[in-house]
Amino acid sequence: MASQQIYLGVIGVGGVGTAFLQQLSKLPNAPSLILLARSSQTLLAPTPSYSPAIPAADWATASSAPSITTSGTLSPAEVISYLSSAPGRSVLVDNTSDPKLASAYPDFLKAGISIVTPNKKAFSSDLLLWKDIFASAAAGKALVYHESTVGAGLPVLSTLRDLVATGDEVTRIEGVFSGTLSFLFNTFAPVSASGPSANWSDVVSQAKELGYTEPDPRDDLNGMDVARKLTILARIAGLEVESPDSFPIESLIPAELASLPATSEGVTEFMTRLHEFDGQMATLKEEAEKAGKVVRYVGSVDVGKKEVKVGLQQFPKDSAIAGLKGSDNIISFYTKRYGSNPLIVQGAGAGGDVTAMGVTADLIKVLERL
Amino acid sequence: MASQQIYLGVIGVGGVGTAFLQQLSKLPNAPSLILLARSSQTLLAPTPSYSPAIPAADWATASSAPSITTSGTLSPAEVISYLSSAPGRSVLVDNTSDPKLASAYPDFLKAGISIVTPNKKAFSSDLLLWKDIFASAAAGKALVYHESTVGAGLPVLSTLRDLVATGDEVTRIEGVFSGTLSFLFNTFAPVSASGPSANWSDVVSQAKELGYTEPDPRDDLNGMDVARKLTILARIAGLEVESPDSFPIESLIPAELASLPATSEGVTEFMTRLHEFDGQMATLKEEAEKAGKVVRYVGSVDVGKKEVKVGLQQFPKDSAIAGLKGSDNIISFYTKRYGSNPLIVQGAGAGGDVTAMGVTADLIKVLERL
Repeated sequence: MASQQIYLGVIGVGGVGTAFLQQLSKLPNAPSLILLARSSQTLLAPTPSYSPAIPAADWATASSAPSITTSGTLSPAEVISYLSSAPGRSVLVDNTSDPKLASAYPDFLKAGISIVTPNKKAFSSDLLLWKDIFASAAAGKALVYHESTVGAGLPVLSTLRDLVATGDEVTRIEGVFSGTLSFLFNTFAPVSASGPSANWSDVVSQAKELGYTEPDPRDDLNGMDVARKLTILARIAGLEVESPDSFPIESLIPAELASLPATSEGVTEFMTRLHEFDGQMATLKEEAEKAGKVVRYVGSVDVGKKEVKVGLQQFPKDSAIAGLKGSDNIISFYTKRYGSNPLIVQGAGAGGDVTAMGVTADLIKVLERL
Repeated sequence: MASQQIYLGVIGVGGVGTAFLQQLSKLPNAPSLILLARSSQTLLAPTPSYSPAIPAADWATASSAPSITTSGTLSPAEVISYLSSAPGRSVLVDNTSDPKLASAYPDFLKAGISIVTPNKKAFSSDLLLWKDIFASAAAGKALVYHESTVGAGLPVLSTLRDLVATGDEVTRIEGVFSGTLSFLFNTFAPVSASGPSANWSDVVSQAKELGYTEPDPRDDLNGMDVARKLTILARIAGLEVESPDSFPIESLIPAELASLPATSEGVTEFMTRLHEFDGQMATLKEEAEKAGKVVRYVGSVDVGKKEVKVGLQQFPKDSAIAGLKGSDNIISFYTKRYGSNPLIVQGAGAGGDVTAMGVTADLIKVLERL
């Protein structure tokens, strides 16, 4: 059990990063924050003593403190060199969604630096990178925790890992994995409709205005975020999924609009023209309605059939998935031990505070083990 | 991180114990099983080498192996002496529901022996014992994990501890915490009734025949098992609950039958006379029905009001609690970060395999930390 000082590097101070630093500043026995990087600037505790540490509570003013070194952006190799020279074990918390940093995880781990992150990129890209990460962790006797890559702070990956590690046979995983798509369909096709039926394009606009979508809503509607999460779940369940491109993803971007550019003009044109497809979405809703069901955007892993799927599906109105509220996620684990009634985890699966909570809880577990 | 050999003592080979040993036998890097006690017999690896270990896969035949020492029942002090003399860190897995063994946990922990257990007794009795356990663990640098004391293998305590440790404010915990009472009310007052309404006493008889109740169903109906679970949750959430007797528990044993003896004759008379109270239970069901609701047996902790309650309550038919199936548990955590939609965990909360899963998963975490 840890008793020596642990050293911490944090990269990214966006929504999740800021919430994480706040949680970190209130941890008893917090590790020593010696590196804090945002896009253009890196704060460093001075070498060779690696002290004083950067104050997590008001890091924003720390850059003007004479004791703290600042520099521009460091390369992954420079961060590794700095952290691995600290006078004790070190941990990197990556609060970015940067694929370049993610692809350097094996180098961090081989150097003995543990990793905690909500960044999906490393775990949902090529299978080779996934394998390299866990092999490097073993080689460097370092740890890697990434609970918040699926369902934010909800206990999803820890539960799945426990099921697998204790020898249960996970047969199927199914759920709503995107807060955005949860909100869109809970609003567009509620179980008990009151008042006039909403148009799909209006619901998307409303979600965009409320800040529930990415700045470019196509980044939610293309299903890629859900596909990345399913890739991670499937791999933990034992399937060797090559990449999120190796299984069918139903995109909610109409084929006619697929070629619009990924620019702000492209976003504007997409939002303007989306109403042309309201009829198609209404038809999907009505078809489900006729069967006494509602339509939802779900992901599923069938472990036996080695099948991963992401797309629209109809659900009975009294099912847990149909009854979901707001932008909640729901994840059902069907296993041999749990039988016909799955183990279910449900709740907010997005947002700075709850995502940071998953990161902080992971960090605590890493500190307990180092 | 652990690399040295860890030594394991296991007490209890009932339903949970047997399932646990099976899971243990399949663990990679399993600890060395050096003590296995059932009610009348204790198997021991021979001292001073503490080897060969007892084979977890077929412990039942190990007692006849010449290399394994057997003796009668050991006292907690004797078990502590044996385990703490092992040539490495040791862990006790208590798969009994023995209050005497539970009250000796502080002695185990002070001697540096970690504890993993589904035994509720130690954590739901006097507050002094609770405090003594965690103080002793700190003093002995030992660990104590007891996930399966609430909701069996469901991630209930780990989730609550993560919420608390990361600084979230848990405001309320509510749920169905007994598989038996879940089955009884899901059957007695289903959301969508089909066919004639069941009598309460018939539902209890049916559950008893199916093995869903304790041998004496009054041990489920008195609410004490639920009260013990609520005591544990409330304490982790920060409330200093003195004991399960310090808050109101609504017993489902009619006052007129409360004085029947705890003998098999008492069970028989209770089951025979329970139908006299079918009218009272039917009235409760009908009252809920008139309000468009169903009646359920729930427990709740209101952290702000410092209020713990166990008993019957009405729930809207479209609520998650009303929609529960079979003998599932459901636990909702309302917190500041999660806002109006709680974090929910749902699934089987009883049974040998899933309870053992919680024990095995805890053991893995202890091994990772020692």
